[in-house]
Parts: sequence; structure tokens; C-alpha cells
Amino acid sequence: MKQDLYLVVIAGGSGTRFWPKSTSSRPKQLLSFGGSTPSKSRSLLAQTLDRFEGIVPKNGFYIATTKKLEKAIVDEKLNAHILAEPQGRNTAPCIYWAAKEVAARDPKGILLVMPADHYIAQPDKLRETIQAASDWARSNDDLITLAIRPTRPETGYGYLKVSADSVKKGGPSKVEAFVEKPNFENAKKFLDAGNYYWNGGMFVWRADVILQAFDQHMPEMKKAWNEAGGSIEKAYPLMTATSIDYGVMEKARNVVTFPLDCGWDDLGSWTSLESLADSLQIRKGSNVVNSGDLLAVESEGNIVDVSNSFVALLDVHNLIVVQTPDALLIANKDKAQDLRKIVEETKKRRPDLV
Amino acid sequence: MKQDLYLVVIAGGSGTRFWPKSTSSRPKQLLSFGGSTPSKSRSLLAQTLDRFEGIVPKNGFYIATTKKLEKAIVDEKLNAHILAEPQGRNTAPCIYWAAKEVAARDPKGILLVMPADHYIAQPDKLRETIQAASDWARSNDDLITLAIRPTRPETGYGYLKVSADSVKKGGPSKVEAFVEKPNFENAKKFLDAGNYYWNGGMFVWRADVILQAFDQHMPEMKKAWNEAGGSIEKAYPLMTATSIDYGVMEKARNVVTFPLDCGWDDLGSWTSLESLADSLQIRKGSNVVNSGDLLAVESEGNIVDVSNSFVALLDVHNLIVVQTPDALLIANKDKAQDLRKIVEETKKRRPDLV
Repeated sequence: MKQDLYLVVIAGGSGTRFWPKSTSSRPKQLLSFGGSTPSKSRSLLAQTLDRFEGIVPKNGFYIATTKKLEKAIVDEKLNAHILAEPQGRNTAPCIYWAAKEVAARDPKGILLVMPADHYIAQPDKLRETIQAASDWARSNDDLITLAIRPTRPETGYGYLKVSADSVKKGGPSKVEAFVEKPNFENAKKFLDAGNYYWNGGMFVWRADVILQAFDQHMPEMKKAWNEAGGSIEKAYPLMTATSIDYGVMEKARNVVTFPLDCGWDDLGSWTSLESLADSLQIRKGSNVVNSGDLLAVESEGNIVDVSNSFVALLDVHNLIVVQTPDALLIANKDKAQDLRKIVEETKKRRPDLV
Repeated sequence: MKQDLYLVVIAGGSGTRFWPKSTSSRPKQLLSFGGSTPSKSRSLLAQTLDRFEGIVPKNGFYIATTKKLEKAIVDEKLNAHILAEPQGRNTAPCIYWAAKEVAARDPKGILLVMPADHYIAQPDKLRETIQAASDWARSNDDLITLAIRPTRPETGYGYLKVSADSVKKGGPSKVEAFVEKPNFENAKKFLDAGNYYWNGGMFVWRADVILQAFDQHMPEMKKAWNEAGGSIEKAYPLMTATSIDYGVMEKARNVVTFPLDCGWDDLGSWTSLESLADSLQIRKGSNVVNSGDLLAVESEGNIVDVSNSFVALLDVHNLIVVQTPDALLIANKDKAQDLRKIVEETKKRRPDLV
């Protein structure tokens, strides 16, 4: 275990893609999926920390989140410092804060920045890549972003373009371009070309290197920080609410990627559970059951999450069925991406449920 | 109000056609449908009694049920004598018991026998028919069964055949035959013919006349009763477990019907709620909501009963959605008649839920 490693988990998201199970006060990172196995009965946030046990020293865990979620995260009783943002302002401000915290302890400390709500089927592979990337960061003044090898022509993610040569060579590659979410045709081209990776929002940076990049590309951050005199409450409104990709990474010239093959999935919608069903061990015959006691009669292709309830299906197909103590969702599986319609309408009628 | 009228409500049924809302310990007669209007927020059993307020004297209400259901019925706080059967033995034994009770108070008393779990849209029409039928019973030694004019070629009910002439004439008709549940072709013929009625299990009998019919067609009932010396516990196992139709009515020669047009429905399955939606005032746009706060997006033709929960539907159609604190059912509406498959399987796995 290297003493200069610090984990910074970005856990401020408030998405409702798993509504009604996920709500603004109980977002995805606080949910668990595939809970029948002990390691997966923990929240995605807890699992994110678990992956770095034995790699990052005990005192080096940070969770960046919003004040709104702070209590729920404290209740998880995780061994981590909590950076509670006065309000959500995208990723750049909280990463600046985390980098300052780490730099104060160790200016050459290495930040491993990880989203709190993704799924990783093979954490060993992630740890291997993290080891290689942090070794690189220790001896190179580069900003490292992990690059996920695409497995399908996905239009929902941004891409990292590297040179075809560097792919052949293997190992780290210099990033040639950050590519916005493509249309389907381009996504297919990227998949075939082989030198485009998914940008999964996982970073490895030496504290001094990322702070230097902030000073170069977002000088207002240092200014806000210094003006606030150490008060986060004062600094936050002065910092620019933008993503670290947009604010720093896309502008920096010293970005290097390490390719990562670890069974990564961003759990973007209820249908993600279907593609991960075997890994999560939640396949029950022809249906997927994340939670609940299912009796399926002449019913196939359904995705079910009904807490501890008994659920009986009779001749129904390709439904998403989600039950919480407060709400019940039944959706056509093909419309998983339209769940926001339901969430927006529910917000109007029953804001307490979103 | 005539002092010789006695209401006998048959409330021992334990059907599960409205599972999971109906269970063996909370059968249909204890449920309410269309509860948004005050009169319909009461259970079907309570509503059955309500229909005879002002017609039957206060002390003349009887509920025949099983010991298993006795407490639940007492909890309804209805103003009625409860005849709690040691076990369910179909309708003949409890009707014999009720007739003996009424005869002990008034040998010429008139029993109005009504199922506890049917729906009647126009109770005034029922009361009119009851008045006419009880007037007839008072002065004729006939057994009266009410005859419901068919509105569709229903294959799920038994029929009463009367002469075509008597239909033309109007008023009471002698029953020529009890006809078993027909196939669809015959049901269509019956509907077209006009001299076939549905047998809805509603009867009007003078106590002495029905007891005389029992003595003639089921003499074992009197024998059991006398041997038991007034002990229901002893009498019940000795009585024949059969229906009043099979045991007495189909054999009797003095059966007369009064036609009844009162918006009757036996609430045979969840889909009944759809045909009764307007009468029950439970139509919400393109869906039917007996209970629950529904948000329907691109969803039509569904039947929803989810207690006090919020339910969101996204692009789903023709589903039956029923939620109780213990179970959730989602069924294709076209398979409402196959609900027993679910109930049988549930009985094996979770007998506590049936």
C-alpha cells in the first residue's frame, strides 16, 4: 500500500433514473443492486470505497457530496472524510476542494477520483489499472483519465480519442481529443475504429498537477478560494459550476489515459440491470429480480424490484416493476429512457416522491 | 315497512377472485369498490344490508357466515344477528338454520335471502321487486327466486327458463327449468330467446314454505336438526353440504320468479370493475382506478387498485394492477379468469397470502 494515495469519491449526484427507488434525497449511490450476495448488499457508494481497501491508507478516503445528502451518507457509517458542499455545483468545485485538502496533507499526494454510483464487475482489474496509473502519476506531470474500452455503440457517453498507434502499443496513451456524445452512426464508427474510449469520469492526478491545471485553465478557482479565507460557505458561490472535464481536462495538453477493462457499467437506467443480471446474480428464470419474491406465470422479460414484497405476474412481458413504500412504477421496458417524463410529472403532483 | 320481513345475507364465501385484495380471511364481501362515494366506501356486505333499511324491521337482519369470518364481520359493527357456521358447508345448511331461526319468531315470516358480495347499481329497483315478491309469498305457497334479465351471452352463470308467454305477460313466472352454465353458443340463444334469466341466488320464501320444501327434498336436514337437540355444532356435520339450488330449488315444483332489472353484477373478477366503472365512478381518463393516486403516461385500459399508494404507469396497457401491504399483482387483463393459477401457486409458496 502506497502512503501517497487518496481516494476521492464523487457522491453529490441526485439523479432519478432509478425512480421511485432513487429520489433526490436517496440517489442511486445510496442504493444497492444484486443484494443477495453480501458484497453487493452494500450501497454503490460503500462498494466504491470497498474497492480501494488495502490500496488507499485508512485515513485517505474522502467522500464529496452535498449538505443535503450528508446525513444519509453519515448514516452509512463509512470510514471516510466527508466534504459536504453547501450546494451542488457540478464536479469542478468539489474536486478543487478535495485537491486542496489532499495538497495540505501531501502536496505530491495522488488523488484517485471515482464516481460513487457506477458498477464494476471486476474490481481486481480496476485496482491493477489504478496501480499502473498512480505509478505513472508519481513520476510524470500528467493528468490521467481512465479509458473504458467500448463494448457497444453507445450514444449516451462522451468519448476519449487516442492515436491508433498507441492502442497497438498498449499501456498509457496521450488523449488527442475529448469527443461529445456521438450519434449512433458515429458511435458505431468509434467502436469499429478501436481508438475511441468511453470517458467514465475516473481520474488519477497528483495534487500539485491538478491544482496547477486549475490555476492555468480555471484561475477563478484559486481566486475564490483565497478570497474566502478558508470558508467553504464563502468560496462555493464564487467558484464556477462546471464539470472537471469541461473546465480543465478538455483544455489541458497533458492528459494521458490508461485503458481499463473491468466490466464497468454506469447503471444508467433500470434496463442496465438486465445486461448486468448474471454478474449481479439477479436472474430468476426469464425475469430479472433485484429485490422481491417473484411468482411469474407465463411472464417473461420483466425487471422487478419490489423491496421485500411478494409479487405475482400473470402473462405480462417486458415490464419494469418497482415498488417502494411510497410509490409503484410499472413501465414498458422499451421506454426506460423516458422515465424522466414520469419523474417530471410526479415532481409537479407529488414533489415529496421525487 | 312489513313486520314479517327478515333479511338473510349469505356471507360465508371465501373466494379469491379479487386476490390479493380478497383473501380467505378477507373475502370479497368485506371489500369495498368505488369507495370515493360515501355509500360505496362501505363493504359489499354492509351495502347489502343498507339496501333493506326501511324495508326490513331493525331486528330482522341476519348474516350467515363461517366462524372463521365471524370476528371480521363483528368488526364491521352492522346491526344484524350473526349465524356463525362451525364450517362452510355450502348454502343449504345455513339457509335451513336461518329458516328455523325465522320460523321460531314467526312461522309465516318471509325470508329475503341475498348474497353478500354482489353489486346492485339501482337498489330502488331491487326494493320494488322485493315488495312485489314478498306480497306474492305472503299469499301463495310458492318458492320465489329473483330472475335477472341477461345483458350479454354469459357462460359463467346458471339460467332459469320460463315460458315465452309469461315473459310477454310480465310479472311473476313459473320456472320451467334450472339450466346449468351454458356454452357460448347456447348462452347466445338464451339471450336472443328472451325467456331465460340469470339465476342470481336471491330468494324470497315464507319460512313455513321453505321448511316444508326442505322436508320434502332434503329430509335429512330436519333429522339432523332434531338429533342435535338445538346444537349447531352437532347438527352441522350431519347436514348435507350442498347448494340450496341443487338441494331444493331444482327439485321443487312450486318455484316462481320475479324478473329483476336493477343493474346487478356478481363482481366475478377484476374486469367487472371495468364494466361497472361509470356506475362506481372509478373511471379516470382511459383507465379504471378503484383505489390509488394514478399517474398514467401513454397508458390506457388498465385496472388499478393500490390502496393509498401513488402509482405511475409508463406505456403499459390492459393490465390489472393490485397492491396490498403484503402482495402485488400485475396481470394481463385478458387473463383475469386465470387468476386462480396465481392463487393456487401462491397457496403453495405463501399460504399466508391467500
